[in-house]
Amino acid sequence: MKQPLELITSPANPLVKALKSLERKKERAETGLFLAEGARIVSEGLAQGWQPETVIIAADMADRPQIADLARQAAKAGARVVAAPERLMTKITQKDNAQSVVAAFRQRHLKLDALPKPKGAPLYIALFEVRDPGNLGTILRTADCAGLSGVILVGTCCDPYSFEAVRASMGSLFDVPFAQADFDSFNTWRKAQKLSLTAASVNGTVRHDGADYQDGAIIIMGNEQAGLPQWAEAACDTLCLIPMRGGADSLNLAQASAIMIYEAWRQRGYA
Amino acid sequence: MKQPLELITSPANPLVKALKSLERKKERAETGLFLAEGARIVSEGLAQGWQPETVIIAADMADRPQIADLARQAAKAGARVVAAPERLMTKITQKDNAQSVVAAFRQRHLKLDALPKPKGAPLYIALFEVRDPGNLGTILRTADCAGLSGVILVGTCCDPYSFEAVRASMGSLFDVPFAQADFDSFNTWRKAQKLSLTAASVNGTVRHDGADYQDGAIIIMGNEQAGLPQWAEAACDTLCLIPMRGGADSLNLAQASAIMIYEAWRQRGYA
Repeated sequence: MKQPLELITSPANPLVKALKSLERKKERAETGLFLAEGARIVSEGLAQGWQPETVIIAADMADRPQIADLARQAAKAGARVVAAPERLMTKITQKDNAQSVVAAFRQRHLKLDALPKPKGAPLYIALFEVRDPGNLGTILRTADCAGLSGVILVGTCCDPYSFEAVRASMGSLFDVPFAQADFDSFNTWRKAQKLSLTAASVNGTVRHDGADYQDGAIIIMGNEQAGLPQWAEAACDTLCLIPMRGGADSLNLAQASAIMIYEAWRQRGYA
Repeated sequence: MKQPLELITSPANPLVKALKSLERKKERAETGLFLAEGARIVSEGLAQGWQPETVIIAADMADRPQIADLARQAAKAGARVVAAPERLMTKITQKDNAQSVVAAFRQRHLKLDALPKPKGAPLYIALFEVRDPGNLGTILRTADCAGLSGVILVGTCCDPYSFEAVRASMGSLFDVPFAQADFDSFNTWRKAQKLSLTAASVNGTVRHDGADYQDGAIIIMGNEQAGLPQWAEAACDTLCLIPMRGGADSLNLAQASAIMIYEAWRQRGYA
């Protein structure tokens, strides 16, 4: 028997307030939750086995087969599933165009040792003190498209679970494993794993396609403003340079990351 | 003799209102102006010969040699140059961290025939109905870094002069020539110029590094949501495919553009 969903209608409903509060880092840290928006992305989270806590369905879309199916899956996974009018959905996400579904999922915080071991030679990208959540989300998306083994957030990075990072990742946050570590732990781990460490740097001495990424490898990218500090560059096996015309300033971090990732994957025959 | 700058102090000053209003497309269209923020970027605009109309200098930085020099150059180029307290700078840009300089520059609207002719084989990127100003600005920046001959905005694109596009371009908007055209004019022009047209598309039949960009070439990228319409794909010489792992969704438009641009430039030996 189909049960109708509980309907919430007040903007003062604690559930609405709780989900909206996830825009703040403090609330995300205290609750261990984050917000995902949109049916496709929430479905991806469920499909990848992430734990949904609360799922809100736009009331006027609750009967659509795809949405009803999503609601059933979420309830089965233990989530509280409710319906709400469009204006409450918009209140939570603060975006003009309301989503059909928003969901609070439980965050995961992987340590380096918990990153899945790929069958072949692993290829990771490490981001040193990345600050812009749009860059972080975009790089997760590109790493996912290129089938990287994972993304490693080194040092004090922006929060991968912020609204902006989750949005920019377009669901890839659920697909591509990512771990956080300080630089020393990261460097110790990668040596134990026999992974080469190649940085893209303005101090690079080898063109980016002159470095070798065919064995187990990590590409490391520095912070948006400051790049990598000298001590971190000194720990790398290779500093490579992405070509730029004379006089040009610099590439955006996510753009430079895409160029590095696709060069490394090219050397592996896109396998 | 050094003249002290005129100081404005009221948020109701018409100059403050006029510059702030450039956040709206309607005001940009009516005035033909746009806003550039930051000393480095405003200097770039002046160096590249763009016409400044109004330049506002943060009053407490007006004595710094670099800023004073910029103010002199702007005045020489015909701009009205004034000083304002930090709170007014913040009011114009609506960003928390105030800029040392903001300037209204006159827009340029190039036709295809006005794009500068490079010495060697030209390489352009065309963006079909690009909608996200962050993507547009980021692609201008990457095109600039790779020394492309220009960027072509095809059909109804977002405004390259919006705050967000100008910010994302990080000054490259002043450096890399860009023109706007409807698809038919664009296609007629590129045939007359004997430029090949290669699209990155999910319908691609050749891997992106299997296409040839060594003679005069244009890379064309479709809209963020819909890609290229079928009739536009039919006008292309080659549809190519950027590799993605099975199951991955899609690359962000600016990321895909960077991968295409750097592949084409690689084939030209980064010359």
